[in-house]
Amino acid sequence: MATILFTHIGQLVSVRPESFRLQGKQLAELPSLRDAYLVVEDGRIAEYGVMDGLTYQPRDFGEHVDARGRLVLPAWCDSHTHLVFAASREQEFVEKIRGSSYAEIAAKGGGILNSARRLADCSEETLFRDAWERLAEIARLGTGAVEIKSGYGLTVESELKMLRVIRRLREKSPLAIRATFLGAHAYPPEYLADHEGYIRLLVEELMPRIAAEGLADFVDVFCEQGFFSAEETLRICEAAWAWGLRPKLHVNQLSSQGGIEAGIRVNALSLDHLETLTPQEIGLLAAATAGATGAGPVATLLPSAAFFLRMPYQPARALLDAGCPVALASDYNPGSSPSGNMNFIVSLACIQLRMLPEEAINAATLNGAYAMGLGEELGSITPGKRANLILTRPVPSLAYLPYAFGTSLVERVLLGGQWM
Amino acid sequence: MATILFTHIGQLVSVRPESFRLQGKQLAELPSLRDAYLVVEDGRIAEYGVMDGLTYQPRDFGEHVDARGRLVLPAWCDSHTHLVFAASREQEFVEKIRGSSYAEIAAKGGGILNSARRLADCSEETLFRDAWERLAEIARLGTGAVEIKSGYGLTVESELKMLRVIRRLREKSPLAIRATFLGAHAYPPEYLADHEGYIRLLVEELMPRIAAEGLADFVDVFCEQGFFSAEETLRICEAAWAWGLRPKLHVNQLSSQGGIEAGIRVNALSLDHLETLTPQEIGLLAAATAGATGAGPVATLLPSAAFFLRMPYQPARALLDAGCPVALASDYNPGSSPSGNMNFIVSLACIQLRMLPEEAINAATLNGAYAMGLGEELGSITPGKRANLILTRPVPSLAYLPYAFGTSLVERVLLGGQWM
Repeated sequence: MATILFTHIGQLVSVRPESFRLQGKQLAELPSLRDAYLVVEDGRIAEYGVMDGLTYQPRDFGEHVDARGRLVLPAWCDSHTHLVFAASREQEFVEKIRGSSYAEIAAKGGGILNSARRLADCSEETLFRDAWERLAEIARLGTGAVEIKSGYGLTVESELKMLRVIRRLREKSPLAIRATFLGAHAYPPEYLADHEGYIRLLVEELMPRIAAEGLADFVDVFCEQGFFSAEETLRICEAAWAWGLRPKLHVNQLSSQGGIEAGIRVNALSLDHLETLTPQEIGLLAAATAGATGAGPVATLLPSAAFFLRMPYQPARALLDAGCPVALASDYNPGSSPSGNMNFIVSLACIQLRMLPEEAINAATLNGAYAMGLGEELGSITPGKRANLILTRPVPSLAYLPYAFGTSLVERVLLGGQWM
Repeated sequence: MATILFTHIGQLVSVRPESFRLQGKQLAELPSLRDAYLVVEDGRIAEYGVMDGLTYQPRDFGEHVDARGRLVLPAWCDSHTHLVFAASREQEFVEKIRGSSYAEIAAKGGGILNSARRLADCSEETLFRDAWERLAEIARLGTGAVEIKSGYGLTVESELKMLRVIRRLREKSPLAIRATFLGAHAYPPEYLADHEGYIRLLVEELMPRIAAEGLADFVDVFCEQGFFSAEETLRICEAAWAWGLRPKLHVNQLSSQGGIEAGIRVNALSLDHLETLTPQEIGLLAAATAGATGAGPVATLLPSAAFFLRMPYQPARALLDAGCPVALASDYNPGSSPSGNMNFIVSLACIQLRMLPEEAINAATLNGAYAMGLGEELGSITPGKRANLILTRPVPSLAYLPYAFGTSLVERVLLGGQWM
């Protein structure tokens, strides 16, 4: 793989000799160099510095990129998506505009069960091809790492089908991909009166097969009223740990159900959504992460889900001010966030959640990487990390990125040393 | 200019044998043809129909476009922008995230007066070049007609400089452009205690010169607390009418100041912003437009300004339900809406203002055209109208357009018969 020399980089963003997960005030610091150079070798970040210290000649490199006036920053790390799905759900979107509630749409066969029905009828090949196109699109938009969940299967065969699609994507894609088993996304109709039966199917039938085939890195549960209780969540997570699957959980989207406490107890890597948080729950999250660096779950905010569902936004400022490690993710899925555009997520976080540009960029890169177990490999300009980079169009400043919310400022994207 | 034949159009949207402004329930109807053809001749829409009725051969045309699976719709008509400006204002954006109020930012020299200072120092050539790039960008995003305001001048020379830049843009651009004189955007510091003096400057010095040079189509006033009162608005508009400038007004963004009543009294073409409306004011707007088709002002909503300023959104449903003619525009400007992406405006209107996809598309095309006096020329697929068209990527349905809020679905844009 050729070497690449970037010179005259207007601003090289998130330069960190050492990598660690960021909490609270650390998120407001985004170390960067102006008028910088960067060397990529074998798809990895080899070296960087200011132009004044550059001793190499461009002719000694396979490729030379003059990045004058531009930002170079780590590619987005999107740690929460459902981007393997069979069909878009814009008709439900229209029903919601007309005033139907989530419950009414679900009663008509909409929601997660709609996606599950469509997925059951869809071939693995079609699922793969459509997800591949979505990956190509988010890569062009600057995403270099993505977590993808199952959870539109809800049967043994369909869950395994989804996870096998994710494995194929992972084997072939230049993006770094992590897989999460979300069999506990909703109770399928035949198990509505038999939660015990479905949980046994997840724990006794699916988990052993997933572990045997190495199909997932994490387990997820939708802990929410009408879905999985905190007790059910605990039970599923404890079983998953035995198969090496660390929890990453959906909690507190619509209501507080004890998901925060359950997630802390099972040492979840991240607790995601968090539209609905009490001050007590914020305190619990802060306390759980107050010890050693990296302890306790990342608080992963999904602002586009709140945007798309017309819900109150996540309390990002309260979480940051309490010292929590915050990440941002797209929640790309056909029901509540039909977009994987992380540039918009970063804008939305600044505009509506009042995150500073530095906080939002850290949350969407380095902390996103840690929220899917890739923090040592990705998410910052650190020697030895994979060269997943965004090169922007010329911009007047870093803050211009979230400010210009309707403009695509990503000019080129390098993933593992390959241009997308 | 070559002829173009579009065939197999998945859905040809807004086909209207006759063109008229849409009010209330009419906005929910978006007549369209499936599996259609369309003929463009000399930059104009010549003919359309369903494929079954097509008697022409593709070889008889200069160009043939197979639009299978795609939508063809009228290009966006963006009837309210300030896209001639000297500099972005992302630092004020960051101050607002940190908690500064509009008044605090203004006290530090921010806001409109910041833009005015920057513009005074900027050459006409630079202003033109930067605005030209913005026009090129919005054209690629599907905008085919745009209204542009002065108002960052606030002196005789700078206001004329802005309007001359808009005239040059109009002469050279493939977009249809309309110019609005917004000298009454804010009181410049030297006139803060002398409103009378500034109004006389606008009315007695500027208006005659603008009329003599034919530099504007419309007049605008920022009718708002701390800016121009309803009485001042009336006086400026009445004077403007004498020079042939019809009012298009900024009203009810932050407060109700009598702007609705003033706008109706001076027969404004449109009343824009409307974040803050009382039920009585909605009633007045509905009554003013209840008579003959085209009577009374268009209610032009600028949802991205509410989005960017974290304000409550405009009451679109109440206006539509009352029977008002509603338009959507971007408000593209460096302070409160740094984007001219009308695709996002349409999404935002559906997601947050609960407009139906059909309503939002009508509001952003045909009614937008009427809101800048171009309704007979643009905004629908009507024989004789200018061929300003969006060709989308393959999409499953019309509703997919606003639903996929983070994805650019515009594949190609034709303006007056020229591909952008």
